[in-house]
Amino acid sequence: MDTLHRALAALDHHECLALLASVPVGQVVFNARALPEILPVNFRVDGDSVVLSVASGSVLARVSDGTVLAFHADRVDETSRTGWSVTVVGRVSEVTDEAERARIRALPLQSWTSDERDHVLRISAERVTGRRLA
Amino acid sequence: MDTLHRALAALDHHECLALLASVPVGQVVFNARALPEILPVNFRVDGDSVVLSVASGSVLARVSDGTVLAFHADRVDETSRTGWSVTVVGRVSEVTDEAERARIRALPLQSWTSDERDHVLRISAERVTGRRLA
Repeated sequence: MDTLHRALAALDHHECLALLASVPVGQVVFNARALPEILPVNFRVDGDSVVLSVASGSVLARVSDGTVLAFHADRVDETSRTGWSVTVVGRVSEVTDEAERARIRALPLQSWTSDERDHVLRISAERVTGRRLA
Repeated sequence: MDTLHRALAALDHHECLALLASVPVGQVVFNARALPEILPVNFRVDGDSVVLSVASGSVLARVSDGTVLAFHADRVDETSRTGWSVTVVGRVSEVTDEAERARIRALPLQSWTSDERDHVLRISAERVTGRRLA
């Protein structure tokens, strides 16, 4: 067994966001009842942030604006053991402006719900780190 | 966009560990300098715990015994949007007993290092949660 980041090349902000933009699924990491929760989510990179849509009943829908969340995505090729890992840490805010919600919900995506009760959340990319894995 | 856990079936402890045992890579989630860090790692399920090996220079190698870590793995089929997500939260301990280290380092694995300086860490599966995604 080996820590996959043994031989790393650090990625810059731009490379990190470009890699994130190449995959549709990542994980949001946050604290709920003092324990870490990790939730897979569909997302999009939108400028200098990550946007995602959560169902009204989701624990993520109850997170207060300004809460710091981490978002992570990676690609690891299990055979060649190459890939990358990117983490974005930043404050979350709910997108409430109707025009902005509509714009985000119109971003091209594999899967889309038409549930208007969904909350659109934005995680600002305040701290972006990433590594190539080898 | 949709929270992938919109339509969930909760998995029990046994199912969670069985799913984890079916994949070689997951992420360790912990706090470093008050910010969340997410590191992809190779791992194995060993009884009621997750075991992994980290390089001496890794930030994970410096985490004190008893620190609570979260470990996560998932499989998401991006086309059918099905899959699963499992999180294990528990205290980490370094495995220092030589016989136990040797046994763990002999567990069948795709990739193996012979670096004897590596630290073997065990995360006890104190809180195991998982969901089917649909």
